[in-house]
Amino acid sequence: MSPEVVHRVAVIGTGMIGTSVALALREAGTGVTLSDRDPDAVAAAVRMGAGAARRPSDPPADVVVIATPPSTVAEVLKQAQARGLGSVYTDVASTKAGVVADAARAGCDLARYVPGHPLAGRELAGPAAANAGLFAGRPWLLCPHPATELGAVRTAMQVIRACRAVPRLLTADTHDRVVAAVSHAPHVVSAALAARFTTADDTTLELAGRGLHDTTRIAHGPPGLWTDILRGNAGAVATVLEAVVDDLASVAADLRSAAATGLRDAATADLATLTDLLSRGNRGRARIKAAKAAPRPADHPAPAPAWPRGA
Amino acid sequence: MSPEVVHRVAVIGTGMIGTSVALALREAGTGVTLSDRDPDAVAAAVRMGAGAARRPSDPPADVVVIATPPSTVAEVLKQAQARGLGSVYTDVASTKAGVVADAARAGCDLARYVPGHPLAGRELAGPAAANAGLFAGRPWLLCPHPATELGAVRTAMQVIRACRAVPRLLTADTHDRVVAAVSHAPHVVSAALAARFTTADDTTLELAGRGLHDTTRIAHGPPGLWTDILRGNAGAVATVLEAVVDDLASVAADLRSAAATGLRDAATADLATLTDLLSRGNRGRARIKAAKAAPRPADHPAPAPAWPRGA
Repeated sequence: MSPEVVHRVAVIGTGMIGTSVALALREAGTGVTLSDRDPDAVAAAVRMGAGAARRPSDPPADVVVIATPPSTVAEVLKQAQARGLGSVYTDVASTKAGVVADAARAGCDLARYVPGHPLAGRELAGPAAANAGLFAGRPWLLCPHPATELGAVRTAMQVIRACRAVPRLLTADTHDRVVAAVSHAPHVVSAALAARFTTADDTTLELAGRGLHDTTRIAHGPPGLWTDILRGNAGAVATVLEAVVDDLASVAADLRSAAATGLRDAATADLATLTDLLSRGNRGRARIKAAKAAPRPADHPAPAPAWPRGA
Repeated sequence: MSPEVVHRVAVIGTGMIGTSVALALREAGTGVTLSDRDPDAVAAAVRMGAGAARRPSDPPADVVVIATPPSTVAEVLKQAQARGLGSVYTDVASTKAGVVADAARAGCDLARYVPGHPLAGRELAGPAAANAGLFAGRPWLLCPHPATELGAVRTAMQVIRACRAVPRLLTADTHDRVVAAVSHAPHVVSAALAARFTTADDTTLELAGRGLHDTTRIAHGPPGLWTDILRGNAGAVATVLEAVVDDLASVAADLRSAAATGLRDAATADLATLTDLLSRGNRGRARIKAAKAAPRPADHPAPAPAWPRGA
């Protein structure tokens, strides 16, 4: 049975996201216990007021939030369910189809597992970077499996609302395609741009302005965690990157030809491929900006669930 | 002879940059006349208080600022010098080696021409986007030719300081390499990322967050002007883009292989190429951020000029 009201949450994994969830829930008055394979990370989260270190004698939680790297979620879920740590389980991994498939293969109880992913800043890591307001007004995606019980989804939504985020349901495949486009591929592209500056001279660095600063901001994220995230969404991310590479390679080739023909001829090169890319960039950017400017419902009603109630 | 004090400036080209220069100079109490091949652009700049429309009877200006697209600068300079519009000439084009070569080939008087480039935001266009504070505290690069008179450079620096910018001397070749890295190539990469969203569905756009917003911000710039800018710096920009393409193509290929081998094997793929790129991205980003955080001298003394005084 899924609890109607969430009183106790167990957070497993006290990195930046897990600790932020815990802090947000504490602010909402929810009881929180914390665990992590690294005792120092738990101690840091406890010092920040994110909750109490979990003890073996603690009663089962209403909801267990698994905030460990994507490749570890299925195993952590399996063990947590075997030990009866809670009633409903959710996670915060940035990829969903692979994690859910892993969980199914590992024999987890999918009826009580609500795959989740809060869309919130990730360029900083560790409990010290956590904050209670991280999710406020942000979408928090839920990708229930056909076997997931509706009551478990409702319970997970209570945790999300307590974190002041906006729950949103979509399929795991749609989730992975969308986040590849809006988050995962941009992260790699930003890294490829920032990577040009590992050996840049002082003059170059001194003359960098806001444009470069903004385009490389998200390149600051833990490489190990991001490799894990991107591995879990490899196909969808590759599709976006291949399209970016096609565009950039065409433009680079045209610019190289223009440069090779000498300035006078370069001046007459029409560089239609470049102008076309810049025009498409304008249109894409205009759509991104318009979507950001559009009012976001603070807490719009969830669409009717399209999956059958599980066993 | 170069004027010791700049009283009158003629701005040719009342787009966003030219009008911002004019507004900054008006604020500093300098007299400004304005011209543009588009009478509406002049009228808009006049209405904003950027100066008076230039009349044929106006006396020669102390400094003529050419703020037209890069490919037109040499011809505009040639005509302006032929008509004796001013004493010292400068421009604001984002590329320098090609513009200076064009000017030399066109037979311009290089002794009185100080090639310039203010580093300031460019994602908006037209006089309406201009503002008097655009250059405050920002670097304004000057790339004198060996034939440029030192007095002309000093006069151009007065205009720069009146705009509250920080003058900085470097060679045209260094200039072009640096701006390819910090501005031109990032613009193309940002466009290639934004271009993925020309046909994105509503779900994708609604879920875009600050990361995508920041990485695509500079993709909003006039394609015609940017084609002109990039054409003028084709070789240096191609070099940066080729390196970005190499990195992204390697990572895309590795992710594609990982996706093709199935989830279980993908989970064990080490994706060393990806982790390496993300690590280099971290290091590059850290250097960009450190350089931005370092205090910028408000008006550091210009280094001693390294070029001979011209004829």
